[in-house]
Amino acid sequence: MKAVIVNQPGSAEQLQIQDFEKPKLQPGEILIHVKAAAINRTDILSREGKAGYMSNPILGIEVSGEVVEAAPGVTLTAGTRVMGLVNGGGYAEYVTMPADRAIVVPDTLSFEEAAAIPEVFLTAYQTLFWLGQLKDDDTVLIHAGGSGVGSAAIQLAKQMTKAKIIVTAGSEEKLAFCRSLGADITINYKEQDFDEEVLNATNNQGVDVILDFIGASYWEKNLKSIKTDGRWVLIGILGGTEVEKVNIMQLLLKRIHLKGTLLTPRSDEYKKELTEEFVQNAMPLFAQKKVKAIVDSVFPLTDIQSAHKQMEANKNIGKIIIDVSL
Amino acid sequence: MKAVIVNQPGSAEQLQIQDFEKPKLQPGEILIHVKAAAINRTDILSREGKAGYMSNPILGIEVSGEVVEAAPGVTLTAGTRVMGLVNGGGYAEYVTMPADRAIVVPDTLSFEEAAAIPEVFLTAYQTLFWLGQLKDDDTVLIHAGGSGVGSAAIQLAKQMTKAKIIVTAGSEEKLAFCRSLGADITINYKEQDFDEEVLNATNNQGVDVILDFIGASYWEKNLKSIKTDGRWVLIGILGGTEVEKVNIMQLLLKRIHLKGTLLTPRSDEYKKELTEEFVQNAMPLFAQKKVKAIVDSVFPLTDIQSAHKQMEANKNIGKIIIDVSL
Repeated sequence: MKAVIVNQPGSAEQLQIQDFEKPKLQPGEILIHVKAAAINRTDILSREGKAGYMSNPILGIEVSGEVVEAAPGVTLTAGTRVMGLVNGGGYAEYVTMPADRAIVVPDTLSFEEAAAIPEVFLTAYQTLFWLGQLKDDDTVLIHAGGSGVGSAAIQLAKQMTKAKIIVTAGSEEKLAFCRSLGADITINYKEQDFDEEVLNATNNQGVDVILDFIGASYWEKNLKSIKTDGRWVLIGILGGTEVEKVNIMQLLLKRIHLKGTLLTPRSDEYKKELTEEFVQNAMPLFAQKKVKAIVDSVFPLTDIQSAHKQMEANKNIGKIIIDVSL
Repeated sequence: MKAVIVNQPGSAEQLQIQDFEKPKLQPGEILIHVKAAAINRTDILSREGKAGYMSNPILGIEVSGEVVEAAPGVTLTAGTRVMGLVNGGGYAEYVTMPADRAIVVPDTLSFEEAAAIPEVFLTAYQTLFWLGQLKDDDTVLIHAGGSGVGSAAIQLAKQMTKAKIIVTAGSEEKLAFCRSLGADITINYKEQDFDEEVLNATNNQGVDVILDFIGASYWEKNLKSIKTDGRWVLIGILGGTEVEKVNIMQLLLKRIHLKGTLLTPRSDEYKKELTEEFVQNAMPLFAQKKVKAIVDSVFPLTDIQSAHKQMEANKNIGKIIIDVSL
């Protein structure tokens, strides 16, 4: 089968298509004929040799496709359309997946749309509800509203709670898009101080939950934006990793819960439980068309380098998909 | 009645005994004839004008004593021995308390012992279980093991879980005391690098829960000492408030939950719920003598200045009590 590997750690030019043997089915797994896969920032870190938690030489952590074969005892049958997280190996014609982590794709969704769902929606679900404990009376601040997780989080927060949703992004086009998904208040961080806007919008109380993909460069403003007893979920470092001075008295006085998280390196058991809860609570919203997969663009597998460059240019709204139906 | 107020923000010399009217009973409250009160660091901050969340001019946040009078509908009767948190006003002959926060004192405990319990044991309970989510298979690192909260946390962790307990303190006398309470491993932070000792003791995995009273000066070592998915409860700033150059990538990669907390400024409802759970799960341990109140010293109310100086000298093991039976 064809699959994408990294020649040596570096830029997108290091991505190469190579022939591999089909992966072998292990107990509890399904073998999937991949139709589409999605690009994630963790793939770029892996390509650059910076992630280091994927032992699989083939990149890619989420796919959609058809079940080809199932291990004994697995109830999914050949031909079933599925999507979900894989332990690497997604940029390939075939991949295996623990069966308890496979999500059946509703008829209303194409394979390209399905591949755009698992990573960002599971992450949005995990951060909003498991870590952020978002409730109806809360206000949530979602940074990078035009990103994959950002746009998923806006939709889930809107459809599953009555919380007020404040979103930041860097262009009017992205902000209009966020409003179309359900954002109540949108802030262009290039033109406004988001902490001031947040305090204005919350009667100087601040927000109950922050989804922070930015990190260091937003630290002080996030600290000002969060309410007493707020949950601050740190999920990305687009704005750098080092904060010059942290005043921990503020963490104490505001009783802040600062929770760092990543989804990809977590255990199979964690991903199974998260997937099961997501399927029960959020998947019906896709079939009802209340929530949608956001596809920015689709590249053929043979053009994988362009797909990575598109993500690095940071101009996508929603997910970048690779079409693996060679 | 006699009560202690602050002349003007400053040192222990600013504490004065003054005549006040007895406080008036509000709905849902009891009036207590105070027998003993305990000194807390928050009292020192209040005395210095640095806390700012107590509107009551009389210092003191915890007492033991006898019920004198109860508001309509309150089931506690006159003469009942009680202890618990008050909203200021503890250094006085009489104080009111929301009745749902009163803890009946077991016969086995003196008033001095009872006054030594509420703040430190409720805080230890809150940080270990509500915030730290300590479980049987976990390892917990308790700093300042000789302090009031530290010694309470060691006992509760020992009696209520099978967790491994690692404790730091600054003298062999304090460490021996911590071992007598149930500490499994003790580290003299003045002679050893506690992070190295913690990693040695945990097969390089680190601890699941840290109770951190120290803050800034321990930041890097705590970060090294905590396990992936660990809960780091920040509850004091004895080692300073400002941390230089915080690498938030570490918070992300280790998926750390950093939780700032304070008990005193929390809501009446929170204190009620915490007290109720504590009474149910931990109070039987006092009657069974499995857990004990740790009294460092007892001063008469008239010598309140010496009591404050004793705490500021930082040499106490356990609680400093004031005897209010004038």
